[in-house]
Amino acid sequence: MMKELPLSKVYQLLEPGPVVLLTTARKGRANVMAMSWHMMVEFEPPLIACIVSNADYSFAALRATRECVIAIPALKIAPKVVQVGNYSGRDVNKFERFGLTAAPAEVVSAPLVAECFANFECKVADTHLVNKYNLFVLEVLKAWIDPAQKNPKTIHHRGYGRFAVDGETIKLKSRMP
Amino acid sequence: MMKELPLSKVYQLLEPGPVVLLTTARKGRANVMAMSWHMMVEFEPPLIACIVSNADYSFAALRATRECVIAIPALKIAPKVVQVGNYSGRDVNKFERFGLTAAPAEVVSAPLVAECFANFECKVADTHLVNKYNLFVLEVLKAWIDPAQKNPKTIHHRGYGRFAVDGETIKLKSRMP
Repeated sequence: MMKELPLSKVYQLLEPGPVVLLTTARKGRANVMAMSWHMMVEFEPPLIACIVSNADYSFAALRATRECVIAIPALKIAPKVVQVGNYSGRDVNKFERFGLTAAPAEVVSAPLVAECFANFECKVADTHLVNKYNLFVLEVLKAWIDPAQKNPKTIHHRGYGRFAVDGETIKLKSRMP
Repeated sequence: MMKELPLSKVYQLLEPGPVVLLTTARKGRANVMAMSWHMMVEFEPPLIACIVSNADYSFAALRATRECVIAIPALKIAPKVVQVGNYSGRDVNKFERFGLTAAPAEVVSAPLVAECFANFECKVADTHLVNKYNLFVLEVLKAWIDPAQKNPKTIHHRGYGRFAVDGETIKLKSRMP
């Protein structure tokens, strides 16, 4: 069961730069893509910028519906994440093909990914840089975590299928949030 | 000695989401800040988006000079990076105070950080979202790596001084760059 995560904590999961999945739904058809080009823009309400290439099948759905879910996969499903990245939603239902579960979200029509330890329901907040850079600004409306996944290790893409996996966590005395 | 890095490889170092340093120089005064809110926007020429808060001392320098350097620190200087994040350039010369070396760049006036294993000389390429979100789009003009730092581990901020350190690297069969 997913549990609600306070919106003020969303940045702590995205700021480290993990590979994420992005889901969309259009005309009853859900799709999922892998994405590494994203960043936080504001703490609360949480704003996220991301690049979704106009070559990606998800681009048109995101632009038309102005909704998506950003889901964070842990290491254990890394092979599925790479498969999601290797195929296009034009050609295949990637949820079925790669054994991912599309679960209903609460406030958007795009689905949650049940296997991911965090899911953020988002609406598109700004499209000024979409035509020039494929850059969308999203607002997170609702956030969920899976409490059953304890201290999940995330993956960080280094290009061509090489991923740095989270190692140890260190704590340094910081004044920054 | 720094060695030139092909611009086509810049994304492989930034896409994993490490904490970076951003340097500026204005009126003969160099400054450095820590930053985690950045992402790749384009492969080549490499474009990077980042958030530099208008509360940061670097903001005015970046906007006025339209130049900066993005430098990637390895784990071994993490304590210096946190100190850089804890202080403002308004109050202190952070290079001197925290023992970082400002080295001359080739095409921008902002300095390289000699202790960092990668340094990217950047110009501001787009300011459309600066007023609304403090979001700058940068173009990397020149990139440098320090070949003496082998397989540097980077740090990824999880909030309040907690950092995930790179662990193992895995390789999965991917069609993606």
